[in-house]
Amino acid sequence: MKLVSFRNRQGEERSGWLRGNFVLDMHVYSQGQLPSRMLEFVQHSALYMPRVLELDRNLQDLELSTMQLNFPNGIYTLDQVTLAAPIPRPPSVRDFYAFESHVKTARGRRGLDMVPEWYEIPVFYFTNHHAIVGPGVEIERPRRTMKLDYELEIACVIGKEGRNITADEADSYILGYCIMNDWSARDIQQQEVKVGLGPAKGKDFATSLGPYLVTKDELETYRSGDRYDLTMTAYVNGTLLSQGNAQEIHYSFGELIARASEDATLYPGDVIGSGTVGTGCLLELGEEVHRWLEPGDQVELEITGLGRLVNHIKESI
Amino acid sequence: MKLVSFRNRQGEERSGWLRGNFVLDMHVYSQGQLPSRMLEFVQHSALYMPRVLELDRNLQDLELSTMQLNFPNGIYTLDQVTLAAPIPRPPSVRDFYAFESHVKTARGRRGLDMVPEWYEIPVFYFTNHHAIVGPGVEIERPRRTMKLDYELEIACVIGKEGRNITADEADSYILGYCIMNDWSARDIQQQEVKVGLGPAKGKDFATSLGPYLVTKDELETYRSGDRYDLTMTAYVNGTLLSQGNAQEIHYSFGELIARASEDATLYPGDVIGSGTVGTGCLLELGEEVHRWLEPGDQVELEITGLGRLVNHIKESI
Repeated sequence: MKLVSFRNRQGEERSGWLRGNFVLDMHVYSQGQLPSRMLEFVQHSALYMPRVLELDRNLQDLELSTMQLNFPNGIYTLDQVTLAAPIPRPPSVRDFYAFESHVKTARGRRGLDMVPEWYEIPVFYFTNHHAIVGPGVEIERPRRTMKLDYELEIACVIGKEGRNITADEADSYILGYCIMNDWSARDIQQQEVKVGLGPAKGKDFATSLGPYLVTKDELETYRSGDRYDLTMTAYVNGTLLSQGNAQEIHYSFGELIARASEDATLYPGDVIGSGTVGTGCLLELGEEVHRWLEPGDQVELEITGLGRLVNHIKESI
Repeated sequence: MKLVSFRNRQGEERSGWLRGNFVLDMHVYSQGQLPSRMLEFVQHSALYMPRVLELDRNLQDLELSTMQLNFPNGIYTLDQVTLAAPIPRPPSVRDFYAFESHVKTARGRRGLDMVPEWYEIPVFYFTNHHAIVGPGVEIERPRRTMKLDYELEIACVIGKEGRNITADEADSYILGYCIMNDWSARDIQQQEVKVGLGPAKGKDFATSLGPYLVTKDELETYRSGDRYDLTMTAYVNGTLLSQGNAQEIHYSFGELIARASEDATLYPGDVIGSGTVGTGCLLELGEEVHRWLEPGDQVELEITGLGRLVNHIKESI
């Protein structure tokens, strides 16, 4: 199932799900039985998930186009709504650094060797969970950067509260996955990381999530062990620049969750990013392959089964 | 005014304020005119702050002890309640690194020189805003650390939403200040920072705030320019170990807020930490002065005008 948050024609934020080309407002369609905000849905997903699956099972595709004529029952076509980040305001966002080739190349660009600690533990930083944006949102290039970059990542969303979760049991804490673009201002980042507190201001202007949150049952066919065989690609202005696969990740999402939850509580809706897949950003490719992002550029991330996440860059106001 | 969050005898979290030895439940005492949670109070502080100030002005100290006999009107003595962190669940926590001598010594302990970038920009990292604890809470030593440390800091709390705030106008965005203890697992931190994403897991088990949030008007007498002359001390098991002053901070809170809000929105209740004052942690003092913290230890931070923040260490369960 593809869970979505969207804005209806009145501009209200709503929770829903995708069925082909249709978006169903889960609160309206369930006649008030399901919540109108995705975070509330996720917080009680054990209760609500079976209900929404049942509603979906009972739908007939043929019916949808007929039913949709009857507007007030909460059925829209995709072009009638604006998709938002599936969880527009997650409680927190941790972003890991779990693809070896990205770390090697990114460190190499700064003249740094790989560190042995990277192989000992999965490492993350907290990024600004108030700066989440959805598909279609124009990304303002921060005023002080001339080196704006994208980062092609896959993220999971936590579906139930937990603490000291083991890697083996972590799967039951994952509600689903989505594409993540961890926009990065490389010049700001490169200046601040020298001080030793990691990236913060180089990242906290925008992180894109979307276009939908795919529940993990829908990804079963791509599963092999504790990894998923999902092609990850990024295009800038239609040109393929990045290509990798989610199964190249060095630490599984189970291992990331084990690390994140050690002596810390994870909450429903918390986002865990994988870190950038190898080749998944301009920093890695180098200016000889592509210049930094500029206003007007279109950045399109695509992951098998998770859709396409498209944003454009605009000048800061 | 000293704003507090506390638990009443029924274990309910409430917002209030301190008046001498008395705690007033602002929701009950105002007969429902003021909110019962501090975050809601802060989110509408322009509306609520004048009301609570007026209620406080109209109080007569003599009356309090008489009135307090009439229990249901929301007046408690301090020993009848449990103080919590003034904002038990802030929307976000940024922690800076703004005291030069701490940065110099802490880097020195790792064999690193001071970096010129530290003098160019104030640098911060996001820490886990879900791991905030209040005074009196026992801090569980993370299972994997043998090097538990405290950090003596001062924090400000944002009182109104803003973005791209200048250092000059930042003061009007500050509601008040409190003591912050950014508990640190040094061995975990030292391992993870080598990977380059800064401290995360070495910090995200607990950060103490409290015992109360002092509105900035109450600190005016200590003010000199854009700094406050506040003595900051830390005691472990009653022994004075750290001593500094808030005015030694290299970047003013105005400058920290300017940095934090650049191309990012700050929200009411957001916490901005100063970073550790010089001598304000065991890492700086060295094991020759004091061993790392152990279960049973009492750590007491004190800042002029902001009270005493006391926590004990316990073994992880």
